[in-house]
Amino acid sequence: MRIGLIGYKFMGRAHSNAWKKAPLFFNLPSTPVLKAVCGRNEEQVKKFAQQWGWETYETNWRIMVERPDIDIIDIAVPQNLHYEIAIAAAKAGKHIFCEKPMAMDSSQAEEMLRVCEENGVRHYLNHNYRRVPAIALAKRIIEEGKVGQIYHWRCAYQQDWITDPSFPLSWQLQKEVAKAGPQWDLNSHCVDLALHLIGDISSVSAMMKSFVTERPIAQESGSGNLKAEASGQGMAKVTVEDAALMHVRFKNGAIGSFEATRFANGRKNRFTFEIYGSQGSITFDLERMNELQVYDHMDESGYKGFKTVLATEENHPYVGNWWPAGHIIGYEHTFVHAVSDFVKAIHDQLPIEPNFETGKTVIQILEAGLQSASEKREIEV
Amino acid sequence: MRIGLIGYKFMGRAHSNAWKKAPLFFNLPSTPVLKAVCGRNEEQVKKFAQQWGWETYETNWRIMVERPDIDIIDIAVPQNLHYEIAIAAAKAGKHIFCEKPMAMDSSQAEEMLRVCEENGVRHYLNHNYRRVPAIALAKRIIEEGKVGQIYHWRCAYQQDWITDPSFPLSWQLQKEVAKAGPQWDLNSHCVDLALHLIGDISSVSAMMKSFVTERPIAQESGSGNLKAEASGQGMAKVTVEDAALMHVRFKNGAIGSFEATRFANGRKNRFTFEIYGSQGSITFDLERMNELQVYDHMDESGYKGFKTVLATEENHPYVGNWWPAGHIIGYEHTFVHAVSDFVKAIHDQLPIEPNFETGKTVIQILEAGLQSASEKREIEV
Amino acid sequence: MRIGLIGYKFMGRAHSNAWKKAPLFFNLPSTPVLKAVCGRNEEQVKKFAQQWGWETYETNWRIMVERPDIDIIDIAVPQNLHYEIAIAAAKAGKHIFCEKPMAMDSSQAEEMLRVCEENGVRHYLNHNYRRVPAIALAKRIIEEGKVGQIYHWRCAYQQDWITDPSFPLSWQLQKEVAKAGPQWDLNSHCVDLALHLIGDISSVSAMMKSFVTERPIAQESGSGNLKAEASGQGMAKVTVEDAALMHVRFKNGAIGSFEATRFANGRKNRFTFEIYGSQGSITFDLERMNELQVYDHMDESGYKGFKTVLATEENHPYVGNWWPAGHIIGYEHTFVHAVSDFVKAIHDQLPIEPNFETGKTVIQILEAGLQSASEKREIEV
Amino acid sequence: MRIGLIGYKFMGRAHSNAWKKAPLFFNLPSTPVLKAVCGRNEEQVKKFAQQWGWETYETNWRIMVERPDIDIIDIAVPQNLHYEIAIAAAKAGKHIFCEKPMAMDSSQAEEMLRVCEENGVRHYLNHNYRRVPAIALAKRIIEEGKVGQIYHWRCAYQQDWITDPSFPLSWQLQKEVAKAGPQWDLNSHCVDLALHLIGDISSVSAMMKSFVTERPIAQESGSGNLKAEASGQGMAKVTVEDAALMHVRFKNGAIGSFEATRFANGRKNRFTFEIYGSQGSITFDLERMNELQVYDHMDESGYKGFKTVLATEENHPYVGNWWPAGHIIGYEHTFVHAVSDFVKAIHDQLPIEPNFETGKTVIQILEAGLQSASEKREIEV
Repeated sequence: MRIGLIGYKFMGRAHSNAWKKAPLFFNLPSTPVLKAVCGRNEEQVKKFAQQWGWETYETNWRIMVERPDIDIIDIAVPQNLHYEIAIAAAKAGKHIFCEKPMAMDSSQAEEMLRVCEENGVRHYLNHNYRRVPAIALAKRIIEEGKVGQIYHWRCAYQQDWITDPSFPLSWQLQKEVAKAGPQWDLNSHCVDLALHLIGDISSVSAMMKSFVTERPIAQESGSGNLKAEASGQGMAKVTVEDAALMHVRFKNGAIGSFEATRFANGRKNRFTFEIYGSQGSITFDLERMNELQVYDHMDESGYKGFKTVLATEENHPYVGNWWPAGHIIGYEHTFVHAVSDFVKAIHDQLPIEPNFETGKTVIQILEAGLQSASEKREIEV
Repeated sequence: MRIGLIGYKFMGRAHSNAWKKAPLFFNLPSTPVLKAVCGRNEEQVKKFAQQWGWETYETNWRIMVERPDIDIIDIAVPQNLHYEIAIAAAKAGKHIFCEKPMAMDSSQAEEMLRVCEENGVRHYLNHNYRRVPAIALAKRIIEEGKVGQIYHWRCAYQQDWITDPSFPLSWQLQKEVAKAGPQWDLNSHCVDLALHLIGDISSVSAMMKSFVTERPIAQESGSGNLKAEASGQGMAKVTVEDAALMHVRFKNGAIGSFEATRFANGRKNRFTFEIYGSQGSITFDLERMNELQVYDHMDESGYKGFKTVLATEENHPYVGNWWPAGHIIGYEHTFVHAVSDFVKAIHDQLPIEPNFETGKTVIQILEAGLQSASEKREIEV
Repeated sequence: MRIGLIGYKFMGRAHSNAWKKAPLFFNLPSTPVLKAVCGRNEEQVKKFAQQWGWETYETNWRIMVERPDIDIIDIAVPQNLHYEIAIAAAKAGKHIFCEKPMAMDSSQAEEMLRVCEENGVRHYLNHNYRRVPAIALAKRIIEEGKVGQIYHWRCAYQQDWITDPSFPLSWQLQKEVAKAGPQWDLNSHCVDLALHLIGDISSVSAMMKSFVTERPIAQESGSGNLKAEASGQGMAKVTVEDAALMHVRFKNGAIGSFEATRFANGRKNRFTFEIYGSQGSITFDLERMNELQVYDHMDESGYKGFKTVLATEENHPYVGNWWPAGHIIGYEHTFVHAVSDFVKAIHDQLPIEPNFETGKTVIQILEAGLQSASEKREIEV
Repeated sequence: MRIGLIGYKFMGRAHSNAWKKAPLFFNLPSTPVLKAVCGRNEEQVKKFAQQWGWETYETNWRIMVERPDIDIIDIAVPQNLHYEIAIAAAKAGKHIFCEKPMAMDSSQAEEMLRVCEENGVRHYLNHNYRRVPAIALAKRIIEEGKVGQIYHWRCAYQQDWITDPSFPLSWQLQKEVAKAGPQWDLNSHCVDLALHLIGDISSVSAMMKSFVTERPIAQESGSGNLKAEASGQGMAKVTVEDAALMHVRFKNGAIGSFEATRFANGRKNRFTFEIYGSQGSITFDLERMNELQVYDHMDESGYKGFKTVLATEENHPYVGNWWPAGHIIGYEHTFVHAVSDFVKAIHDQLPIEPNFETGKTVIQILEAGLQSASEKREIEV
């Protein structure tokens, strides 16, 4: 399987690492070949290709997606480019491994899905947290009925990288590129997991907030497509929210809350969820991602409590492929798990999730959140 | 100061303990005299009076509030009785120490406040968590500016005492007595603290949910005023919600989320909050109520983190009156702190909070939450 | 039961509180009567008696122990006075409730035990941590076989109140009064619990250390019996150790480690233990004294982990007498539990532990530790 | 730099991964070339070479160490083979990257060091935990004086992989191969870190214990050199200890305790240490290896506490080379850090630690521990 990677920043590194590492630790039916990487800045992409062992490079993704020596297009660029690339790749018959969030809106997402299906290409959307072993364990616990009927999903995704008002107006703070703030970037993770672990969502009620409404214009825009409206003195308006809260109703009767923010000082990348059900409960914290807190309501009276399961044992999902029990893994391993499952799914022609179908649903819910916040009322999905 | 206590169940015990204990540990200007306790069941109230050292007892609160040998009426009965008792006590010139939630609705609350003010009696509303030393410390930290501009309040109050569907329809599950479910019982605590620590609230958006909609009729109703509508086979409708979620906007620009539930298996009485601000952050968990997590954003880079402050030191609020540093206190101590402050406030004719003014505001916000949930839209307060 | 309390400082307060509170929360067969309190400073002891409701006071303990209107002598003074008082009280036919550590050496302890037995009086030694509900739960778990064969006991008792070299030479730092440092004060707690939870000890290997070897002479000695050897400039030698480490062998094959120190900056009163056995494991931390960490090795593979049991439920030891589940208790409650059990034991003429028999064994092990540290070799007990 | 790796089991994988990954994430002056891997089983070593990209393989390490196309010998086999290989490699002029524990005794260690020095080859001993970012941060904090004079080192290394008495007599349980039990395997890590963080050790007092004294003979011995003395029925004697406790004195006046065991049910690979000093304190837990607990005694009174520093920020050691702040790393990354530093040290001809000098000292202390346990007395080192 010959890979063509588009993008070479944070996600480009994480994906490159995963393509290289998966065959070392997982028994893959086919070994990924790092055929080409693509980026607009030739000097940088060339250097990246050399460092990471990509055989060739491109500076135009349109050429890349047409290359006959490539089977899989790995989309690791900001989401405003996903639509065009994915459509082109699918039409060129390439399988797609795509970063999240999937797209700028649900109509894009729907078309991406439709074109992939029409062209018979596989599509994987990298909501990578599903493949954190502890979260995969949570899924298994729920499927085994150990949580019973679920009542509550409560999650928060908290960061603090823009609390300084002098932090510049990067692409993530501009609607044209990023579509929204943490509602898009962070809640896409959260909603994907809620769908995965709890089930379908029927309605959304959201509240959003901007704390810093204008910021200095960045001297050099990483994404090159800055169109901020200047408001004098080198300042421009922030056009996405800083925090996004959501309440949802699940079709199975559970209710859920989401809190995504870039203004939680002290939280670098804290994603935490709590699940409460009739038979048991589960909590998780990404900053301690090798642990799962599990409560079994069926335990003997007087001996109940939340149990810290260190998800590093051989019979825990994925983790037996790494190190002996008690030796923890990190963030990047989730990408290796994703690549490993993706390669197997393509080889065996089996379904894989999350995919563009999942992504479309996630985007619809995020959109409903934006609408709800704007109209200040609950929205049915 | 001669006390007349109305109610002798859970809260009656907690209050009795506090009146007895306060003069032992706090330097009070006046010693409370346990003059009379009142309850409808003569046998039980008599026994209670003997055990706890109340000089006399009454079975009719109307007689109690008129007794000339009583200065302070302590209202420790379910909230549906607060209004009548408080009005009568105030008219009789008694100072009032009242359990929360304050009343059945904001019009009751307003009148209670007005009548107290007209009659020149002091009123204290026992949202006791303000007097947890760690929470009082949080208040001090905020007042000292160490949190800066506050962005987020995120709290949850989680219990699990009614997750069993065979749990009977106690008074707490009936609207006529309890007004609402966790929105009233638990969120009243949370809203009081949010007002105390963050500031005034301008709008509310809520979602509520019932998981178990009918329950067995209790054989013997503790409160004696069960009027549940029977739905056959000894079952009756639950008329309050099982879970209450709220998003709020604070006038100072912060946003907040509240999650109150009686369906979080594994959580007996977990009340936790997180506060994020421009200079620092704070988190608290009632199950570890002697600890406060404090993050100082001004700490040296590379040495930042949430600090576990064990609030048992001499210069922490209240706690120097107890034991040496490192020796923790418990739930009941908050009542002693309340009684101590109340006695001092009355003696020195100084204001005390929370009071009926506070309580009225809390009730207004809780009501707005009920309305918001019902109308599925954001409500301005 | 008429109580005579000797001592009115930290322990005098804790004991007074317990005698008053026990009958309010526990169903006692007999109500303690606070008959007299004794202290050398008349003004202070008189004030204490008034505040705490002791009917009378004494300034000479020899008179106190002879008073015919007293049934129980409660010894709450420093340990160098225990021997004389206990002997006199026993000879006067009084039951004894005694603070720990029991005595200055094992010959004192043996005689105290012997004289009590000869005079048919009950003796209780207040190693109060046995009556922390979570620790009593640990005992129950062990007795139920849930830990199986025990391999390890690992504990630490850490404080930091004398890390400042200018902290004066209080009585706790002088051998004549305190016998030893943390080996006596802190390890007496630890050894008592190890005997209680694990079993008899057969040998001891210890290492001790003084970090600050001389200190300013205190202006006013609380205990009045300062005999420090001055070393010039108002400084005097510290004659006890600052830290005491022990390894022990238990007769049942387990091994144990103890670490007691007053030089652990950041630890106010942290006492923590870990127990590892063939079927399960347990850990505890006094700063979170309402919690017990329990590991069940028999749990299903993949679902094992340390469980945080919040020991506040009705079927947990002692705690059902306090508040509803989830409402934590504090340090002082252990004294109430002790008083409650003591009153019942005396009334029902049943044995109670720990007692002077226990205390004697504890002292023997602590002495062996001192000898081992001095001789730098393992000592059989 | 051309690498020759000897060993392809757990450590062989970890080292291979590190050699491959280091140049991707760290800016190395020279790229490691995976030249050859060596193992006795040709089929397996060949397969390993193919999977991990080693250019060639060998089945005889004596041939390997003489190969002129190899610059660095990476020794990743059990310790009983270290001596012979290291001596031969050094004599062949190869630099050495060696797993821990270094050797079977201090005379081996001394000679290994001497021969390396004589032949001018670099030697690195892989006590990899020094390169956990949080531990490297601890070192920095100590060097900056933030801990002040150190009083206490308290550590434990706890595992549970042999608590089942039917676990067979693997090579780790045989003195001829393993030299000792956790004293060698686990305490070597602990002593290395104690030397690194606290300083030189002057005396040792140890206690050791075997809980299961004979075990089933393994059907197939992984190491091929099983010489267990059969005691009938397929059982043989365990010839190493199951648990090893040590107390030590440091030359700078601190004291330390070590507890290493394979019988702590519930602990897979828990290594935890506490450091207490005059200015601050530090604690660490390997199962949460991205976190460091830091207490600053100089913090404002009332605001002191242990701070959880998530060591994932750009200015923390090593970790800026990985992912954005808040994205944790795992066990294997420590090997990448080691390889990276090793490559730089060789290129720049700078010293690197730990090395055979360090290792020799560690072995001397571990030996003193064995002697102390045997003679039941404190041993000067």
